Amino acid sequence: MRTISENRCFGGVQGVYAHASSATNCEMTFGLFLPAEAEIAPVPVLWYLSGLTCTHENAMTKAGAQKWAAEAGIALVFPDTSPRGTDVPDDPAYDLGQGAGFYVNATQDPWAQHYQMWDYIAEDLPRLLDTTFPIDPERQSICGHSMGGHGALTLAMRLPGRYRSVSAFAPIAHPTASDWGRKHFLNYLGAEESGWAGHDATLLMRERGFDGEVLVDQGTTDPFVNALMPEALAEAMCARRQPGAVRMQKGYDHSYFMISTFMPDHVSFHAEALWA
Amino acid sequence: MRTISENRCFGGVQGVYAHASSATNCEMTFGLFLPAEAEIAPVPVLWYLSGLTCTHENAMTKAGAQKWAAEAGIALVFPDTSPRGTDVPDDPAYDLGQGAGFYVNATQDPWAQHYQMWDYIAEDLPRLLDTTFPIDPERQSICGHSMGGHGALTLAMRLPGRYRSVSAFAPIAHPTASDWGRKHFLNYLGAEESGWAGHDATLLMRERGFDGEVLVDQGTTDPFVNALMPEALAEAMCARRQPGAVRMQKGYDHSYFMISTFMPDHVSFHAEALWA
Repeated sequence: MRTISENRCFGGVQGVYAHASSATNCEMTFGLFLPAEAEIAPVPVLWYLSGLTCTHENAMTKAGAQKWAAEAGIALVFPDTSPRGTDVPDDPAYDLGQGAGFYVNATQDPWAQHYQMWDYIAEDLPRLLDTTFPIDPERQSICGHSMGGHGALTLAMRLPGRYRSVSAFAPIAHPTASDWGRKHFLNYLGAEESGWAGHDATLLMRERGFDGEVLVDQGTTDPFVNALMPEALAEAMCARRQPGAVRMQKGYDHSYFMISTFMPDHVSFHAEALWA
Repeated sequence: MRTISENRCFGGVQGVYAHASSATNCEMTFGLFLPAEAEIAPVPVLWYLSGLTCTHENAMTKAGAQKWAAEAGIALVFPDTSPRGTDVPDDPAYDLGQGAGFYVNATQDPWAQHYQMWDYIAEDLPRLLDTTFPIDPERQSICGHSMGGHGALTLAMRLPGRYRSVSAFAPIAHPTASDWGRKHFLNYLGAEESGWAGHDATLLMRERGFDGEVLVDQGTTDPFVNALMPEALAEAMCARRQPGAVRMQKGYDHSYFMISTFMPDHVSFHAEALWA
């Protein structure tokens, strides 16, 4: 692992680090915010998974999360959204290839060799964090935006006991039924749709739910809302009697201005679970 | 109108009054909380519609709303849930007849002569309040529990401009598809189901929505949740991009202990709209 940068931030440190990932077979970059409390003892951690086109940097610079995490004494991890590099397959479209890993393990060529983002988030990066930084692996929660909301929800439901709470900003909520999802599953996972169900938050909510609280915020005037399908996830959550909330936020869109507005609520939501 | 009781309460007055209603053709009793501010100028008002078996008294004594309404400078109205009296038709079942008006205007015998609860809440009682108490008719909001949540949601959507915000505790959310609803509509409105749609919050949400914010709280372990069908309303709200929130509250049931727990949130929610 190498340190790219470390900056003082709200009494703690906002770092950026790179490491060789065995999951993605390439160098991966991530951001990590450690609050002041981490100098004394391991702290809880909140994962933030970003959306299409993002790197580790977008949320780190635009979501305004460090302020609230510092107050709550919680670390923040900002992983990248895909493998990167000139040797890593890509696609001219903004929503496929680099910047669009979709938090799955690709089984199809040319993606399979590097696009193992599920394993990267679920196993590879956690292992590095656990052994390198003062983070308490027993106290983890996860959130994300758009494609990252999809990632957060699916990881949380399929790794019971790993995360204490999960939240999402404008998640891709039902990707097996949406253009944001079907394209990726077809390319990364192949045409057999039965293999897609484990990566659909609505289907997972119907099938198993989450053993904790779920918070979802969605802007009512998000230009991508038809592809996000919050109504499918809301129906599944309520039908399952899943503890949590779906909030339709009037006049908000899909941008980081929406995320930064509701970030205080999300950090508070997770802090309640992490410090319980 | 006659005064049944007036008690000092959180710096204001909790009154109980009776009046002859032209809508229900009988004497009706209601509770009214006026905060201290009402001694100086007209105040905004929050309607609270109660559920099956309740009178004007249940929420007035058990919901704990006066404390929060006093802080917000808001009046509270607690209407009864049906016409009352020995001359008023009734039914041995807890969920039909007296205590179960369902906030509709009955068209069927023997109910039609007195069971005009829609008109009572929408026209008759507001007229009395406007002319008798220091309440500002331009600043009204509405909430309710169970059958009263159904009433609040349907009144709010069908009287656009009347209420600035609407909220519900464990509402009967889709009564045309539930035993809590079909029985009442059949008895009060007759067998022609097309006439029921205007009294179903989910169908109204799909068709027109509400011009303001909607807040719904539902306990995950409410023993009546299968009859309440929050999933249908949640799906309709999100599909419509209706500003608002549906919250599934872990471990809460259908009682006033649930209502009193979330009452502060609901009063704050309405206060924001009423004082905007």
